[in-house]
Amino acid sequence: MESVSDKNYIEQVSVECVILGYQNRQLKVLVPKLSFKGDFWGLPGGFVYQEEDTDDAARRILYARTGIRDVYLEQFQVMGKADRNSRAFLDRMIELNADIFNNPLAEGESSRRDYDWFTRRFISIGYYALVDMNQVVSQKTDLDASIEWYPIQELPQMIMDHNQIVKNALKTLRLTLDQKLTAFNLLPETFTMQEIQDLYEAIFDKRFAQNNFPKRILRLNALERLEKKYTGAANKAPYLYRLDRERCNQLLDEDLFLE
Amino acid sequence: MESVSDKNYIEQVSVECVILGYQNRQLKVLVPKLSFKGDFWGLPGGFVYQEEDTDDAARRILYARTGIRDVYLEQFQVMGKADRNSRAFLDRMIELNADIFNNPLAEGESSRRDYDWFTRRFISIGYYALVDMNQVVSQKTDLDASIEWYPIQELPQMIMDHNQIVKNALKTLRLTLDQKLTAFNLLPETFTMQEIQDLYEAIFDKRFAQNNFPKRILRLNALERLEKKYTGAANKAPYLYRLDRERCNQLLDEDLFLE
Repeated sequence: MESVSDKNYIEQVSVECVILGYQNRQLKVLVPKLSFKGDFWGLPGGFVYQEEDTDDAARRILYARTGIRDVYLEQFQVMGKADRNSRAFLDRMIELNADIFNNPLAEGESSRRDYDWFTRRFISIGYYALVDMNQVVSQKTDLDASIEWYPIQELPQMIMDHNQIVKNALKTLRLTLDQKLTAFNLLPETFTMQEIQDLYEAIFDKRFAQNNFPKRILRLNALERLEKKYTGAANKAPYLYRLDRERCNQLLDEDLFLE
Repeated sequence: MESVSDKNYIEQVSVECVILGYQNRQLKVLVPKLSFKGDFWGLPGGFVYQEEDTDDAARRILYARTGIRDVYLEQFQVMGKADRNSRAFLDRMIELNADIFNNPLAEGESSRRDYDWFTRRFISIGYYALVDMNQVVSQKTDLDASIEWYPIQELPQMIMDHNQIVKNALKTLRLTLDQKLTAFNLLPETFTMQEIQDLYEAIFDKRFAQNNFPKRILRLNALERLEKKYTGAANKAPYLYRLDRERCNQLLDEDLFLE
């Protein structure tokens, strides 16, 4: 088996992906469970090839687990603490899986080098992706026992600082939701005001006043109002909305770039 | 001389700092000029020691050039393109400074290794700092011919993608200015509404309507109104404001964290 330390990766740098979807009024995260004894969960992640942009590495990792490429993807934070290495987690995994590893360090130079490679300090570049869960065909890699969507408030305890990475992704999503209009990546093409409010409430994990919320959203000045939704009861039917893409692009450029 | 490749740095990772100040209604950036022929300017940057948090590396680099430590510092973006290496810039610098370098690669194994080390691809972690220019005593390092504040709209052409890094820092600053209340790091302890407006106009490089601006700022709900500023003409004197630190911390926590 080829040693990971022989691959043409940048050393001590990894990419971790927080893949976010929305379903049944809940924000969800796609989390694989490792195929080893000991109940280890960890974010989909990987390394960066010498000739690969970090954004492309994130897209590659995302594609491997979801089968989709064309999604909203944003690099949001670097996990740069010197003491966040994975030695403790790896040692525990090897201990619990002695039957598989059977003293792996004795197997030869290659596994020794892999162990050294994996247990050095890593600087992790965090990305979050907003995906349409209906389009995702979640896929296990060789190292996964399973892969599942978890409500963001009910995540399993993950390895290293991965739970904190999810919290930071959510923080970033909340912080720039209105300016970047990112929420709409989690809605279908057309939607009612109530559906936007449900999504916002899921993202912020709190209720918004029914009488103020539409004002807040319409102030973004990014929506087109379409016909009423067909419900059979014409006078009570809610309007449908759609992102005004042109106005959107204009908004996203405005104030934000020097050029 | 000790070879940089022998130091205990993480390879292929660097930190670049955009140091922002505010003076005479202008946003300014602290930029050193390299002490070589050829007019090379570049952002204050450096590398990360194996045992050092990336945030601490940024603070170390910032302190070396400004003499101050206690400033607003935010990691905002990773420059992760595979083709952003510094080979072109280094080759040009060596060519123009042949009298100094005098075929440096012939000097021995150490300079050869340094050249190889510097010309590999680097993943750069971008930080921006908001500093009080009155507190800064800007300091050259061994490699600088000079170090100066430049208006952000009048920066010299810098090496590699450093001009783009400044643009991205400004974009991030604009994007989260209201939510993170970062602008107030560039003002003295107390200030008038006009002084906030001047600063916002410098940051966004555009004018805001005089009758709307105070409303926008007061809606942040983060300011304390103090006594009127003494100007000699009591009835026309503007009020002074101060950040309400307690309300501020509350705002910054609100909506942003799961915990």
